[in-house]
Amino acid sequence: MKTVIVIGALGKMGQAALSGLKNHKVITAGRSGEVDHIVDITDEQSIINLYEQVGHFDAVVNTVGYCEYATFDEMSESQWMTTVTSKMMGQINLVRIGQRYIAEGGSFTLISGILNVKPIPMAIADATTSGAIDTFVKCVAYELPRGIRINAINPTVLEEAWAVYGEMMPGFQPVPSALVGKAFERSVAGFITGEVLFVDA
Amino acid sequence: MKTVIVIGALGKMGQAALSGLKNHKVITAGRSGEVDHIVDITDEQSIINLYEQVGHFDAVVNTVGYCEYATFDEMSESQWMTTVTSKMMGQINLVRIGQRYIAEGGSFTLISGILNVKPIPMAIADATTSGAIDTFVKCVAYELPRGIRINAINPTVLEEAWAVYGEMMPGFQPVPSALVGKAFERSVAGFITGEVLFVDA
Repeated sequence: MKTVIVIGALGKMGQAALSGLKNHKVITAGRSGEVDHIVDITDEQSIINLYEQVGHFDAVVNTVGYCEYATFDEMSESQWMTTVTSKMMGQINLVRIGQRYIAEGGSFTLISGILNVKPIPMAIADATTSGAIDTFVKCVAYELPRGIRINAINPTVLEEAWAVYGEMMPGFQPVPSALVGKAFERSVAGFITGEVLFVDA
Repeated sequence: MKTVIVIGALGKMGQAALSGLKNHKVITAGRSGEVDHIVDITDEQSIINLYEQVGHFDAVVNTVGYCEYATFDEMSESQWMTTVTSKMMGQINLVRIGQRYIAEGGSFTLISGILNVKPIPMAIADATTSGAIDTFVKCVAYELPRGIRINAINPTVLEEAWAVYGEMMPGFQPVPSALVGKAFERSVAGFITGEVLFVDA
């Protein structure tokens, strides 16, 4: 049984992750709501506070990363930077700072998303930052000390989120969040590292 | 014969690009030195000024993107953001702004670099932003209007830069810049779009 910090635990992707982590001790975190710890991944000090408050942990599972959606022509520099700051640098900073706190042999599991390999209109910033995260995970795995592992989960849309995203994703087959939960479980419990775990149908 | 803006024309990668563009009318640009236009790709207004000053052009070839190099543990948030602002967002902004100025059927050619598929120590920010650019090019190609194309050149180290980078890249085979120039030529003169042109040995 591992102690796992799940960031974004109240969201749909967080719930998917939780479904796969029932054999572990979960510490929930998020920007607001009924979680064990409040954290904003776009704020370095907030990340430091989270790790300091938690103390011992074996794994970090991040399920959040805010993206702006617009056509490429209409997406402003500010919208791009909002996405970069959260989905890309927020996640990188979770690992950069967290590597100093996490237990030996611990693991980080980040979130990207299928739109970098299945592009759709309005999602260029999501796709680009997902590509950055997938690449980051594959490359940084060689650098992490003390047997620390890192993987990314790259899911398609969840069945549970289809009502919200289905209209912008014609021709996509949603997957049950329990299946995405399995990917989180495989990342946390296994020995794999530097991998992007696609969950697609 | 196309009118091609080459950004970073005085650098080694710029010289590689120029070697492939001898059949075209080249307008040189860069941050300093003996170029036709001064431009800083990290500054939106500077990009706008470049396009306004040039007037008609059929292609933009970018060969610049500043990266910081350090171990993942030692690379600061500020070093990450310097890299993101230049190599990633600087190039994205060249396209975002340039799509409104470039001629019908024009092309953008961006630069990434082989370290996102052949990771080495010290290069995590370079690799991550190269992954972002490769993804961006593949996805945004579907969105560009008026027959505008986009590709990325993803070269290994140049023979001409081996003296500088060779020590940090053991086991890499440098390629002649003339070969990289061919990839730039193929992007500018061809009909391909949404492709990453790897030049590796």
